[in-house]
Amino acid sequence: MDAAEFRKSGKQMVDYIADYLEKIDKRQVFPDVEPGYLRPLIPDCAPQDPESFDDVFKDIEKIIMPGAASPACTELETVMMDWLGKMINLPEEFLAEKGGQGGGVIQGSASEATLISLLAARTKTIRRVQSEKPELTEADIMGRLVAYASDQAHSSVEKAALIGGVKIKKVSSDDKFSVCGSSLKKVLDEDRASGLIPFFFCATLGTTPCCSFDKLFDLGPICNKKSFWMHIDAAYAGSAFICPEFRHLLNGVEFADSFMFNPHKWLLVNFDCSAMWVKKRSDITSVFKLEPLYLQHQHQDSGLVTDYRHWQIPLGRRFRSLKLWFVLRMYGVRGLQEHIRKHIRLSHQFEDLVLQDERFEICAEVVLGLVCFRLKGSNELNKELLKSINEAKKIHLVPCHLREKFVLRFAICSRVVETTHVEFAWQHISQLATDLLKAWEQNHHQQHQQ
Amino acid sequence: MDAAEFRKSGKQMVDYIADYLEKIDKRQVFPDVEPGYLRPLIPDCAPQDPESFDDVFKDIEKIIMPGAASPACTELETVMMDWLGKMINLPEEFLAEKGGQGGGVIQGSASEATLISLLAARTKTIRRVQSEKPELTEADIMGRLVAYASDQAHSSVEKAALIGGVKIKKVSSDDKFSVCGSSLKKVLDEDRASGLIPFFFCATLGTTPCCSFDKLFDLGPICNKKSFWMHIDAAYAGSAFICPEFRHLLNGVEFADSFMFNPHKWLLVNFDCSAMWVKKRSDITSVFKLEPLYLQHQHQDSGLVTDYRHWQIPLGRRFRSLKLWFVLRMYGVRGLQEHIRKHIRLSHQFEDLVLQDERFEICAEVVLGLVCFRLKGSNELNKELLKSINEAKKIHLVPCHLREKFVLRFAICSRVVETTHVEFAWQHISQLATDLLKAWEQNHHQQHQQ
Repeated sequence: MDAAEFRKSGKQMVDYIADYLEKIDKRQVFPDVEPGYLRPLIPDCAPQDPESFDDVFKDIEKIIMPGAASPACTELETVMMDWLGKMINLPEEFLAEKGGQGGGVIQGSASEATLISLLAARTKTIRRVQSEKPELTEADIMGRLVAYASDQAHSSVEKAALIGGVKIKKVSSDDKFSVCGSSLKKVLDEDRASGLIPFFFCATLGTTPCCSFDKLFDLGPICNKKSFWMHIDAAYAGSAFICPEFRHLLNGVEFADSFMFNPHKWLLVNFDCSAMWVKKRSDITSVFKLEPLYLQHQHQDSGLVTDYRHWQIPLGRRFRSLKLWFVLRMYGVRGLQEHIRKHIRLSHQFEDLVLQDERFEICAEVVLGLVCFRLKGSNELNKELLKSINEAKKIHLVPCHLREKFVLRFAICSRVVETTHVEFAWQHISQLATDLLKAWEQNHHQQHQQ
Repeated sequence: MDAAEFRKSGKQMVDYIADYLEKIDKRQVFPDVEPGYLRPLIPDCAPQDPESFDDVFKDIEKIIMPGAASPACTELETVMMDWLGKMINLPEEFLAEKGGQGGGVIQGSASEATLISLLAARTKTIRRVQSEKPELTEADIMGRLVAYASDQAHSSVEKAALIGGVKIKKVSSDDKFSVCGSSLKKVLDEDRASGLIPFFFCATLGTTPCCSFDKLFDLGPICNKKSFWMHIDAAYAGSAFICPEFRHLLNGVEFADSFMFNPHKWLLVNFDCSAMWVKKRSDITSVFKLEPLYLQHQHQDSGLVTDYRHWQIPLGRRFRSLKLWFVLRMYGVRGLQEHIRKHIRLSHQFEDLVLQDERFEICAEVVLGLVCFRLKGSNELNKELLKSINEAKKIHLVPCHLREKFVLRFAICSRVVETTHVEFAWQHISQLATDLLKAWEQNHHQQHQQ
């Protein structure tokens, strides 16, 4: 959708809202539909090819409005999460559609998804240990629980452990910045031997610093062996799995208890929209289930209704699945795949430009849309380069540390980025590097003379 | 703003967004402003009288865009929270403006605000107890921590305690469904005597079942005496405190460590917008402070910058203060006061109608926009009445239990509600009650004959 179409469709939507508000008293206060009404009304997977805004728009009155905010909000979310799950070929156990035990939910952030999965694991482990060793109090067990994540994992994993009141340990990643099985096994063995209770591992697919991937195939069996929760945080990388050629990066997800990625990061869905799936819904809902009378309803125990309030921290919910519905239909799977492929092509274009310049080095394998690079030389030099880039305000880069190295990160993000932008960015960086190296040398030369 | 104005302004906004996207490559990627740029550009409190949409709209390009998403998003939030705090005459300690230790933040829900305050209290208490009794481990202390809330408190308080891994106890409310000091003191004394560590009390102003108010003046000194956190959840009632005649209901807030209410509930701000204030920012940020390199910035330790990511569970943030800015300016304080007063007038109108009908009783004092009522008679009878009301789908009521009584709740909520709607609702309820009582009597009569 270009700006002209946006003007037209946006105004159509404004009129729809105004019409709705003007005639709101003609609408029924409570819908006539029964739970489960929505799924049969829409296809069971996302379209391959784009649909028009008008087609999607018409379905609001036809499909959403009869189910009002509730149950439409819940039911569209469940079905959209199935659509999205199928787009990345998630194992069936994670889907809700066939009356299985799994399903998806939209959380507000990857942090919340990690926290929810950690809490589910905590509850499950406390119950198991209490049944095995009734002499232990909940506090005794809590004090011995340990969560794990890569030394490359996002800070939100540590935050989740802090909130949940449990210890967290970092597992060493290898020379590719990936955690492999032996590394996890070693720390688990040591901790179990010293009386601790390992209960949760957060694997990362596409780490924040350099987009490295933990080795699920290696790690999964270790986690599954001793009723130990494996959560996968693929916040950024997850969107790429809609392309068959990148789907192999998700292999091993079948070992996980929960999985998440952020369609708001790379799938053209506006912030916030964090897609999370679990294999067993009851693992999550049993953490929270509270039923005051003012929240009870007639379908409470029917099994027909998904009470998402038990899947998350807030009670209230926004209708975020509408965003997914619009985006998945208006781009179609093919349109979204093109978007992902273009970004990855552009990151490799940037990588090539870096590799052609002997002054620079690539610091981690370029797999998706992120290029980690630096000037060969000291961290000081690279800090200076970053400073000059960001002070020029033509482009903006965020750095990271990879082991002892200070590294610059070039991230392809925008919906409208093109080859010319990448060329421009590289020329700009290259010129600043030339200027910097010259000044640096002069400075060095002067110091020698003094 | 009526529907016609909404059509005009909405379309103006659509064009603005389209223009922005069309010319995005002409904008700088990083703002030129320094931290603190925004506050001097706008007034230090909300206007009393409404401003036009055009006036507010112009300020987007003038005030927000030069600060881009960051720091504008953060700085507008801090200032809007000061505006809102002043509108309810919150003690200065809770405001950020004069370089004090307090300040406000927008959370996504009351549940999150309660959780954050409980976690802050937990961290603070663990540190204090550890310094007093170094022989205790964190797990020992966690196992002895107890949080408290009224037996009328919202289920989110129990949820927060479950997440935080601490015990929670309900404090008995009195015959007005309020918690008074003696009731809290009794349970605290008992628990302290048995070796537990009380650390957190969530007082409620405007409980969900019947809009009762805990007695802050009574409770505050008890909480303050032994470094024990008092959080106030005024999710619904808080908006009313912008009217001087209802502000007395907030008296005693000076004893609290944290306070919250939901402008999205009753202040015409769209969901979600949960306003939370603390007296000491560092109590909250010390729970979470994590500083990976990719989140560091040059103003890190300057004290000039509010890093809201340390005030909340998610890392990412939406620009929710824009909603507040628009609403507070387009209604003005007077417009919002009128809105609150109208709702409360209408709830008393409904109360009067109920009181004029001898078949009905009022079940709790009507203070704000909620009327708790029922047919004199059995709970079964009232459940039948609720069923017939909700099945007719002309209006929708949500019930509650007040002690042994099953009670119907009539809540004034809509922006566009008028006297005629209240009259209609009462006539409808009254007619359904007549039909029900007739059927009930016939049924009773038949049973006697059989």
